[in-house]
Amino acid sequence: MASTANPFAISLSSNPTSLRKTNNSSDSFLRVQSPNSVSLRSSFVSPSSIELNLNRRVSSVSSASRVRSRICASSAPVMESAAKTDSNAPTIVDVDLGNRSYPIYIGSGLLDQPHLLQKHVHGKRVLVVTNSTVAPLYLDKVVEALTKGNPNVSVESVILPDGEKYKDMDTLEKVFDKAIESRLDRRCTFVALGGGVIGDLCGYAAASFLRGVNFIQIPTTVMAQVDSSVGGKTGINHRLGKNLIGAFYQPQCVLIDTDTLNTLPDRELGSGLAEVIKYGLIRDAEFFEWQEKNMEALMARDPSALTYAIKRSCENKAEVVSLDEKEGGLRATLNLGHTFGHAIETSFGYGQWLHGEAVAVGMVMAVDMSHRLGWIDDSIVKRVHNILQRAKLPTTPPEMMTVEMFKSVMAVDKKVADGLLRLILLKGPLGNCVFTGDYDRKALDETLRAFVKS
Amino acid sequence: MASTANPFAISLSSNPTSLRKTNNSSDSFLRVQSPNSVSLRSSFVSPSSIELNLNRRVSSVSSASRVRSRICASSAPVMESAAKTDSNAPTIVDVDLGNRSYPIYIGSGLLDQPHLLQKHVHGKRVLVVTNSTVAPLYLDKVVEALTKGNPNVSVESVILPDGEKYKDMDTLEKVFDKAIESRLDRRCTFVALGGGVIGDLCGYAAASFLRGVNFIQIPTTVMAQVDSSVGGKTGINHRLGKNLIGAFYQPQCVLIDTDTLNTLPDRELGSGLAEVIKYGLIRDAEFFEWQEKNMEALMARDPSALTYAIKRSCENKAEVVSLDEKEGGLRATLNLGHTFGHAIETSFGYGQWLHGEAVAVGMVMAVDMSHRLGWIDDSIVKRVHNILQRAKLPTTPPEMMTVEMFKSVMAVDKKVADGLLRLILLKGPLGNCVFTGDYDRKALDETLRAFVKS
Repeated sequence: MASTANPFAISLSSNPTSLRKTNNSSDSFLRVQSPNSVSLRSSFVSPSSIELNLNRRVSSVSSASRVRSRICASSAPVMESAAKTDSNAPTIVDVDLGNRSYPIYIGSGLLDQPHLLQKHVHGKRVLVVTNSTVAPLYLDKVVEALTKGNPNVSVESVILPDGEKYKDMDTLEKVFDKAIESRLDRRCTFVALGGGVIGDLCGYAAASFLRGVNFIQIPTTVMAQVDSSVGGKTGINHRLGKNLIGAFYQPQCVLIDTDTLNTLPDRELGSGLAEVIKYGLIRDAEFFEWQEKNMEALMARDPSALTYAIKRSCENKAEVVSLDEKEGGLRATLNLGHTFGHAIETSFGYGQWLHGEAVAVGMVMAVDMSHRLGWIDDSIVKRVHNILQRAKLPTTPPEMMTVEMFKSVMAVDKKVADGLLRLILLKGPLGNCVFTGDYDRKALDETLRAFVKS
Repeated sequence: MASTANPFAISLSSNPTSLRKTNNSSDSFLRVQSPNSVSLRSSFVSPSSIELNLNRRVSSVSSASRVRSRICASSAPVMESAAKTDSNAPTIVDVDLGNRSYPIYIGSGLLDQPHLLQKHVHGKRVLVVTNSTVAPLYLDKVVEALTKGNPNVSVESVILPDGEKYKDMDTLEKVFDKAIESRLDRRCTFVALGGGVIGDLCGYAAASFLRGVNFIQIPTTVMAQVDSSVGGKTGINHRLGKNLIGAFYQPQCVLIDTDTLNTLPDRELGSGLAEVIKYGLIRDAEFFEWQEKNMEALMARDPSALTYAIKRSCENKAEVVSLDEKEGGLRATLNLGHTFGHAIETSFGYGQWLHGEAVAVGMVMAVDMSHRLGWIDDSIVKRVHNILQRAKLPTTPPEMMTVEMFKSVMAVDKKVADGLLRLILLKGPLGNCVFTGDYDRKALDETLRAFVKS
């Protein structure tokens, strides 16, 4: 086991008394200067929101004073209650990544507004990548949106089998085969129509085909809308672990038509809400409190509640991705519960549990461990259990899981650095977390033993 | 067949009478503003070296007044004759790509200087990717260079079968399997030890493993040293075409130990020289003339002649890549002869002909077509034939090739845009070329019929 001394800790907490102001005014970025220090530099983060404490090898961002204006330039202001949205005008959340910036359109009936998609199509050829569940529901609608009043565009499609277990190299090859047999060239556009599996796989195909072609995300699940379609993480699974092969590759736009959620199974809805809950826990206490008031509305698919939850989730994700596109540190915090969760998904076979279900249990385990470390109050543990149960999400791993199964999968997690497993754990008041390898190994062992039988 | 009107033409020729000066002084880049125009902007290109003529949909760079100081900041000045090199101090050519810049080290005995490699290794884990031909010759030496005086580093290796036909998805998976089974994490480094196939495949594996890890190129063939290891094009073949799957991904450094050429078969030597000759033809007439004087020294493996040819080739490549990393236009000119050549390689089965052999024939065909179009003198045609023959390279395609075989492969070339095939052709005095789809289709047909039987 690695030592507990950890050179890669990044702590995110609000502590206005230990501020150190940065005087650099160039574009924002998070730069890892050496294994021992992290520099966070920004022109638009207010001085009160950043703490640089290199002696403690820590940099911090307060959850209470986050960047908003530039990230969410075109979005409606954040409100206490669900936003009223005009079904004709999409809410827009901008992901700010310099010359790779792009908009997220959110709203009802967006697939009936062809110009939204068409202005992001490059070239005259489009390949829609979708699956056998989504194709009968939305493929025709998407083809119409791509071609209406635009006769020069021709659209091909490839319909893949549905499920996480098909997020693999063989299925990826099917997309390449279709693209090459259709003689698509560099000026084509790939469109991902479906959930997270389709988005991740299609994105990686777009990143790799002819060394990179344009692509557009049309996510049709809450999970994909609030998480996987935003931020450019693309990839496929390997039999030994999730998302081990892939690329950072940004889409031209993300189009979220909330009407597509009308056909989503209940279990998929709950799975997506696990990621929504995550944003509250790691960086947005106010949003968590809104969820506590509105969970039943979300579960009942109240359109304005869903739109607000998606928008605020996308804002949180866009903000983190803009500051740390390639996961130098900050972005890793989006993986709260994912290390434990991936172990469940990998051991149990992809697709037996939905991703959000595994993440829900993972979050419970991360919260349990944070509490054992003395980093959070008992009240947070209870609130997390409570909200997950209201979202009909599991809070304990499958019975067949063992400590060894967790450990062997967690050892190949992408957040391992030089052999040391770093975890996202809660620390401090609600809405604050740390990404660190600097924790007592005993607490991890105790958590694992508390949640599995052997 | 597509029409002859072509919105994507980029012409590279020297015509000081039609200059238009650019007054922008920011960093250099080639930016495609719209399908109809190309803008070339640079802070260090002298005004006399750029022609912008948007009415003709053309921008030009003179071969006689190229950028040198910044690209080759650390390299020795270009000399008329072979440079004398100190075997201890490497010649360094810098590839200028902002925060993705990296050095190319060129010289004899560089694998005996561990610090060169070690300063570019990230993390404590290294995976050397090599093949069954190169491993017995140089793997131990590379492992020693990586670990000497550096006991914290552990090195794994994966030895792949040798040959272009293994540059495929199945072989790529072997690299992923090894990396994952060895539990490599994001802070590892992949090292490509071998020719172009190894470099391209290992580079793509590094780009994709955990969405991108560091990698180092140690090319051991002339082909890889002067071309494929420089510039970040990585990828694998598809059964329907070469290099259709891949990524733009830059290495940490390229280390060229010219001693590795001592074990290179003659046929491989000649194949690499095809790319050396290409640089002269497309942009460096002076270098072509040097080659005409020194071809026998190159074929006899005179060390200083080889070092000079490699250095000057790398300078040319680094310059082009720095101006146009993602192949917006200028970089495509490096593919002189490659479109015809790929058709030969694909139709004939990868590995039957070496890449440079196919490119040699492709260059002869491109030169033939340029002459039929009236764009170059007969004397250039003769000089190209002559120098290729002195490098023992073929100048006619295999007898089994047909016009249809050429056309069907060329139709899926990456340089096709919206269905129009663009080619690199010579135009004007030696050392000038164009990248264009604006040519008489008849000339292409005539060239194809002149070189094949049916």
